[in-house]
Amino acid sequence: MHLTAPRDKLNTIIQITQRAVSQRSPMPLLSCLHFESKDDLLFLSSTDLEFGIRCTIPVNTIVNGSTAIPAKYVTSLFSRLPNEDINIKCDIASNTTTFMYGESEVVLNGYPADEFPVFPSLPENPTLVLNQNQLKNMLKHVIFAVSNEEHRPIFTGINFTVTPKGTLSLVATDIRRLALCEEKLVTPPEQLINIIVPGKTLNELYRILDAVDDNIYIYITDNKIFFTIDNICIMSRLIAGQFPDYRIVIPESYICEARVPVSSLLDAAERASLLVNTNRNVFNINFSPSGLMIYFYTETGRIREELAAEFTGEPLDVGFNVRFFIDVLKSMDSEEVIIKLSGRESPSLIIPVDDERYFSILVPAVP
Amino acid sequence: MHLTAPRDKLNTIIQITQRAVSQRSPMPLLSCLHFESKDDLLFLSSTDLEFGIRCTIPVNTIVNGSTAIPAKYVTSLFSRLPNEDINIKCDIASNTTTFMYGESEVVLNGYPADEFPVFPSLPENPTLVLNQNQLKNMLKHVIFAVSNEEHRPIFTGINFTVTPKGTLSLVATDIRRLALCEEKLVTPPEQLINIIVPGKTLNELYRILDAVDDNIYIYITDNKIFFTIDNICIMSRLIAGQFPDYRIVIPESYICEARVPVSSLLDAAERASLLVNTNRNVFNINFSPSGLMIYFYTETGRIREELAAEFTGEPLDVGFNVRFFIDVLKSMDSEEVIIKLSGRESPSLIIPVDDERYFSILVPAVP
Repeated sequence: MHLTAPRDKLNTIIQITQRAVSQRSPMPLLSCLHFESKDDLLFLSSTDLEFGIRCTIPVNTIVNGSTAIPAKYVTSLFSRLPNEDINIKCDIASNTTTFMYGESEVVLNGYPADEFPVFPSLPENPTLVLNQNQLKNMLKHVIFAVSNEEHRPIFTGINFTVTPKGTLSLVATDIRRLALCEEKLVTPPEQLINIIVPGKTLNELYRILDAVDDNIYIYITDNKIFFTIDNICIMSRLIAGQFPDYRIVIPESYICEARVPVSSLLDAAERASLLVNTNRNVFNINFSPSGLMIYFYTETGRIREELAAEFTGEPLDVGFNVRFFIDVLKSMDSEEVIIKLSGRESPSLIIPVDDERYFSILVPAVP
Repeated sequence: MHLTAPRDKLNTIIQITQRAVSQRSPMPLLSCLHFESKDDLLFLSSTDLEFGIRCTIPVNTIVNGSTAIPAKYVTSLFSRLPNEDINIKCDIASNTTTFMYGESEVVLNGYPADEFPVFPSLPENPTLVLNQNQLKNMLKHVIFAVSNEEHRPIFTGINFTVTPKGTLSLVATDIRRLALCEEKLVTPPEQLINIIVPGKTLNELYRILDAVDDNIYIYITDNKIFFTIDNICIMSRLIAGQFPDYRIVIPESYICEARVPVSSLLDAAERASLLVNTNRNVFNINFSPSGLMIYFYTETGRIREELAAEFTGEPLDVGFNVRFFIDVLKSMDSEEVIIKLSGRESPSLIIPVDDERYFSILVPAVP
């Protein structure tokens, strides 16, 4: 492989691609970025076998070829190279790659490129086309509820479904909390969709997505999903299994409900979180006609916060995991939320005011 | 103790004072901030017994008194309190302090305040008056050379001296490198000064100092130093001992010297530092009429950087610790430096062009 390309363009795709590099793999090859130049295109890819990123840019190719170089060093090097054309030349015999700039050069030791896992090919046609901003916004409302407990794999992902009516729905839950966001699709796909996409993939996608109206193309196969944005392709395996139906968790009736400003409720919860320790992480909220009263004590001290609220129904006192409560509030875009309670141990519903696309369910906890 | 004061004013002094809180002390009391209100002044202090900070602000005192509260919780709490008057009330019987804001309150558990170490009193008159910007600038040029090896205490500090001619000199060294900065004082002190101030104290002082022309008052006693800036007082023990005379290290003659732009030399050294590992941290620089050539190799790869330079003398090839070399360059304010070499194992001198106030000495290392 031998090519030249401007440092800035290379640096941009290196910084994106390195995000899929396996940090703890026993295979040294998976700690590498894979460079492949072919007819004036450079394909840069990385994978931990379950998740991968491939970026493509036009370059000036002198000799086609490929190489694999430890991501850590390439990434640091490019963040410090001068902004000029970089001449990259790979020596297959020694598995070394030389980066030439001005009168200077750095040579990095690498690995045989042909052992690097092949980046899976994209299906011919996308299953779904969304706009970036729309998907980023949907992810914001649900991603916090993804579980990181590996022993229940299906809850480590987000359930993407498209109903016969053409509604895209994203649901995440770890049993103690659930978040849902739905959008009516302008151009629904031809087939129904019901898949579970790993939360880890979507966290990385969330970082890469820009709040712009540009398209993102989604390709779905039996066991994989691909997201393509411009010259970036993100690949991930899907999680096998059947996601539970969230509808059975939604209470049929409520004891009371309160309408509260998000920012003051969040501030109060954040202050309460200062007192959280490993033994006590559940605070109480007293809902009554006089408003909300948060109260909580630990070995460190105690807090009592009073907030005005529009209240209807019977007074109730419930416990919530402080961290979970904060996560829900942070996922809200509205200025106010409505909290509906169905009992001290039954699910509560948290709904943004003036936005019917999303809501969260939080199961009260016992202090 | 019972007082009220605006949250912002309290928060500012809390964030400064908490910097002297002992992180690893076996005495829980030293993890606290000490509050003392007296006749409409609040004195907030912290110490690890060797180093301390005290800030003073006017408050509305209702009852004089004092308390000690774990710094971690007070600091986090104030960063999240609403910006309004905070009512602080201490209950001596239970060692608790209540922070009231709006209709809400937080109570933090504390410790008996009377066991908190007394903040030493300031001598009557300052020994030295400098301007903040001047001292901050001097510290920048020398602080990097302070040793952190506790077994040679004198090298963990900076030697402050004032000569009979009224020149203030700051010197730091860890034997392998040395940095000096001198300034002619406009109003020299009446006595000669020769003290060693702990690097840790000066690092904190450096953060607190603003790049403004306001005065900083320095008070020196037999075993302590105080720095006061506005309402902030920093106290530190001095390091006992005699600092070595740096003049004996300065070579009498040089084999060659080169004049190089700081930024391109620093960039090259930073790129070389990517290859550093625990076994190899010394790179070579070849000084010759054709310029400087940096070269270095480790298991990760190799680098060769060529830089144009004005050169005079005999060619020489020397090794430098990469990290030390970078530290020296970062301490320079000038666009160019002159590097003077006296041999492969003799000290080299690094001098900013057009600034005679400071220089560094770096002892070459064997790769």
